[in-house]
Formats: sequence, C-alpha cells, structure tokens
Amino acid sequence: MIKVGINGYGTIGRRVADAVRLQNDMTIVGIVKTKPDYLAREASSTFNVFANNKENLKNFEDAGIKASGTVDDLLQSVDVMVDCTPEGMGEKNREIYRKNKVKGIFQGGEEANVAEQSFNAYSSYDRSVGKKFLRVVSCNTTGLARTIYPLMKKFGVESVDATLIRRATDPNDSKKGPINAIEPSLKFPSHHGPDLKTVLDIENVGTVAIKVPTTLMHVHSVSLQTKSTPSKDAIMEEWGKFNRIILVSGKSGISSTSQVMDLAREFGRKRGDLFEIAVWKESLFISGNNIRYIQAVHQESDVVPENIDAIRAIMGDADREKSITNTDNTMGIFKREL
Amino acid sequence: MIKVGINGYGTIGRRVADAVRLQNDMTIVGIVKTKPDYLAREASSTFNVFANNKENLKNFEDAGIKASGTVDDLLQSVDVMVDCTPEGMGEKNREIYRKNKVKGIFQGGEEANVAEQSFNAYSSYDRSVGKKFLRVVSCNTTGLARTIYPLMKKFGVESVDATLIRRATDPNDSKKGPINAIEPSLKFPSHHGPDLKTVLDIENVGTVAIKVPTTLMHVHSVSLQTKSTPSKDAIMEEWGKFNRIILVSGKSGISSTSQVMDLAREFGRKRGDLFEIAVWKESLFISGNNIRYIQAVHQESDVVPENIDAIRAIMGDADREKSITNTDNTMGIFKREL
Repeated sequence: MIKVGINGYGTIGRRVADAVRLQNDMTIVGIVKTKPDYLAREASSTFNVFANNKENLKNFEDAGIKASGTVDDLLQSVDVMVDCTPEGMGEKNREIYRKNKVKGIFQGGEEANVAEQSFNAYSSYDRSVGKKFLRVVSCNTTGLARTIYPLMKKFGVESVDATLIRRATDPNDSKKGPINAIEPSLKFPSHHGPDLKTVLDIENVGTVAIKVPTTLMHVHSVSLQTKSTPSKDAIMEEWGKFNRIILVSGKSGISSTSQVMDLAREFGRKRGDLFEIAVWKESLFISGNNIRYIQAVHQESDVVPENIDAIRAIMGDADREKSITNTDNTMGIFKREL
Repeated sequence: MIKVGINGYGTIGRRVADAVRLQNDMTIVGIVKTKPDYLAREASSTFNVFANNKENLKNFEDAGIKASGTVDDLLQSVDVMVDCTPEGMGEKNREIYRKNKVKGIFQGGEEANVAEQSFNAYSSYDRSVGKKFLRVVSCNTTGLARTIYPLMKKFGVESVDATLIRRATDPNDSKKGPINAIEPSLKFPSHHGPDLKTVLDIENVGTVAIKVPTTLMHVHSVSLQTKSTPSKDAIMEEWGKFNRIILVSGKSGISSTSQVMDLAREFGRKRGDLFEIAVWKESLFISGNNIRYIQAVHQESDVVPENIDAIRAIMGDADREKSITNTDNTMGIFKREL
C-alpha cells in the first residue's frame, strides 16, 4: 500500500486526494492546508488535516477544525508527497522532501527542472518509473499530449501549431480577470510549446495562448503535420483506443464548453469533473498531411488521472497499461458513445 | 409506491428524476424528451425515455437512442406527472393530464392559475394536500419563502422589500445574455412579489429584479419589517431549525457565489448542486424592527426537494414534517457547521 500525502488542497490537491481514495494500492495519510477555510472544514470529515506550519496550526484550533499536526509530522509517515501548492513553491518544498527521504510529484505550474522527468501517462510513463521527483505537466500540456500522442504513435507527427484559448480563472475564484477583454500572451511560443516537448518527442511545436473571460474550460485549436496521410476514420479509430479522449458532437447538442461541462455533470462524478479531453468530431479536418481539430480541456481535473499514474510510476510500478487501466476503471473513465 | 412521470428533462426535470430515485415511496416510470440530444442519451441508461410525439419518436430511433413510446403511452401508467417543460407549456399540458386522469405538478415559470395551489414545503404544504394540480414556485420565490417563513412564524413579518440580483442564464446555456450589461426589470413590483404571496400570507411584498452577467446563482438583498424585535442570535437560531437554509461566512473564505458553489461541489452531490439557500452570517443587520440580510440561491436545484414534497402532498400524504424529513435525509440535506 503506497502511503500518499497531499501538500496543498486547492483545485488539484482535493481532486487527487479523492482519486487516491478510489485506488486499492494506495492510501491518503494526510493533506496539508494553510488556512482553516471551508475546504479545510469539509476535508476534515474525510482526511487527516495537517497545517503547513506551527503558527497556522493554532488557527485551525481556533476555528474548531481538528488538525493532526504540521507538514513535518506528515512527512514522517508517507512514501510520496503530491505537491499541489501554488506555482513556484515546489522548488523550495523539494528540498524538504529530499531531506525527509520522501518522493515528490509536482504540478505543471513548476518549472520543468523541479523534477527529473515530466509526466504524461500516455507519452512518458516508461521514462518516469522509479524516479525521485516527477512533474505532471499542466492541464493545457496534458490536453495536447493526450490527443497528439495517438496520432504520433500511428502516423508520425512532424510539427504542431496550436492556439490555446485559455479560461481566465477557475470557477471558485472571484478575484482574477479579465472579465471583459481578450488577453494574448506576448511571447512566442508560449510556455506550452517547450512544455509539450518535455513529454513528447516532436521537434517543432509552436503555441500561442490567449486568455478569454470564462471559467469553464480551455479550448485548443490544433493544427499538425503528420508523416503519413491518415483518413478521418483512421484518426477517429486511434483516438477511440484511448479512454481519456472523448469525442463529442454538435449534432447531439454540444456546441460550446457550456454543454461539454453540462454533459460532464450528467456523468455523476464528484464536482462534475471531466477527466477526459473532449474533441469535437465535426472539427476534424484533413488536407493532405495537415490535420486540424478543436478540443476542450477541463483545467480543474484533466491532470487528476495522470497524478494517480505518476504515483505508481514514481514508486517503481513499471506496468503502464495496468496502471492506466486501474486508474480509468476506478475513476469511471470509459469509452462512451456520444 | 407513487408512480411518477417527468415531462421535460432539462435543468429541473433531470434533477427531480434523480431525486425521486432516492425516495422509497415513489418511482420514475419514465421521462419525456423532445430531442435525442446528449441528455437523452445519458438518461436512457437510467430511465425509460419517451418522446413528446410520434414524429420525434422517429428521431430517437434514427439517433440510436432507445425510446419506449410517446408521452401518451407514459400517461397510461403514472399517478402524477411532474411538468418541467419550458414556461408557458404547462397550461396546455394540464388539459392532457386532466383527460388522462393524471395529477400534475408544474414549475414556477407557469402562471399561478395553472394550478389550484402554489407550493413551498415550509409555508404551503398543508394547503396542498390531495389537490389535482400544484405549482412549485420559482427558484427565486422558493429562496424568499425559505428564509422569510421561519421569521414570519416566530416574529411576525409586516412587509418585505427585496432586490433580486439575477443570474443571466443557466451554466449549460450559451445563447442568452446579457454578457456585459446590467438589466433591470422595468415593472414594479417584479413578478416575484405577487408570487411570494401565493405561498406566504404577507400583505406588503415589494421586489425588484436585476439581471447580471453570471450563470452560477441569484443573490437576494432582503429587507423586512418584523412585528416583534428579534436579536441576531434569535434569528440565527430560527434559521438553524430549517435544514434547507445554510449559514455561510466570509471568515471561512466564502465571499461570493463562486465560493458558495465551490463549497457545494465539495458536498459530493451529483452535478454539484446546492439545494439549500445560503445566507451570509455577516450580512444579517438589525435596526429596530428592520431586518436585513443577503442570500444566494442555486437556481438549478433549490426547487428540487420542494418537488419531492409536492409529489407526496398532491398524492394525499398529509404529514408535512415526515415528508420534509424523508426528503432531506435521502437528498443529504442536513445541518452543517460552516
């Protein structure tokens, strides 16, 4: 039984914690929170809650939320810490994990060099087995890796050119903007291009990121050059082999991210999450070796199954297929007719 | 066992259908859909799906979704139809129900005179028992009735003055606006004032409604005159007796509807629903007999428990307390410390 700690219980941390609970080869020893807020209170009915330091521990007591100690206590009894702290804190935390001989899995907000290897279950599991530190790439990069990997494997991919229309902030946030503007990234390529190359061996990856006023999902407009010339059906067939890709259609009433997330709510998962990348069938367009398609990414949850597989990989479990199948089965990720 | 049909499987219909499934004294015989869209496909794995007419039945077959017949077939085998069709269709449907000797529960989008009695579980259950046709008042009116009823019962209420800051549309819709404007209702009082009086005996109710660009929730700024002069603690204590009111606090990080709905997602209910009305503790302000407070209403789901109680009332079950307790227990609505 792998003993897992979760450092940071925000958008990603709480979802990874719940996903670990569904596995039968790992268990949550505790989660680390800084503030005794409503998330801490809800978490305390399911998990052992630890404060990030002694000062904050007192705040938990004052708020009437049971805390089991500080992160230092938790580190004594875990094999691996999934670090879901705000971006930029991972590097500092890594040294604490190292000192305590605990493995660490970081998120895509960290620089790639925080870990020995960046992780995507489809494309870089094998390279990640038994490492001390892994980094699960960001929601956007995970989305790109998921749908490009099957095409690369089957048809070969020369180059990728993608425009990422990014959500402004997450649904639980009411501070950030923009609320009435479109905000382009002013660097080319955006960091997603180089990031994709940490998990997928493609030489040319160009990405542009543009922020828009929505909280539901990211949308990617992807254009890529394949080495061979696939048919539409052949591409659909390849994608159909991977459970973490879901094909949706305007014909069945799914014409925007509003309906994609509404569909996800019908799946009955906690928080209405969509772990899969949703690709619009109608958006697939082929012209010679140029393949175009549009996909939607649920930024709050698509990396959650990857974190579960990363836990197995980092603990030395070399059976990629078995891990992915276990994760998918326990999390209710299966092929759906839509 | 009460045999229930659901006519219309949109925002309200699908939620009522799932809530009926949780009860042990009623069962869903079938649901009626017009289009074979993604909702129909998802529903077909759980419920018998009926088309609204023969023409549309063919579309279900063409889309590969199993349908059990038309609404006329369904009407032969139900005791009560919960009508969740788009507003204005209820009156026409009522005559079909009458002809088939089936009772009907309508939603707040219909005019009050569609039914013999408008329904709120706290304030008008007793008057609704054994009726042929009931109408569950709208999400906004339900929100007002829920928090005002306890105050009326304990302290007496002379008059109500409320400003309703309304969400523009539901999260699954991407057609309606406004997306960058604030749109006041140009009639005083808005229809919510008279509507509240159909379930609560208060002479003076003034309401103003203002639409804003959000999809998450409505927010009500309520001001009322009580007959006696209650303390803050006494009001909190009264509200605390009713499970369908939840007290939230800025201190625990809940400062906007974003965090209210994020909290709801932690409850783990299907679709992340919040059946309760959320009142901000800090917003309660008392000056003599004038009570002010601010509350948030999840427009997609707050009327769902009311529909369950309305089914029992219309079928002649006179035990209001028992119905409410059963509904709350099965739907996971209980007193929470927040």
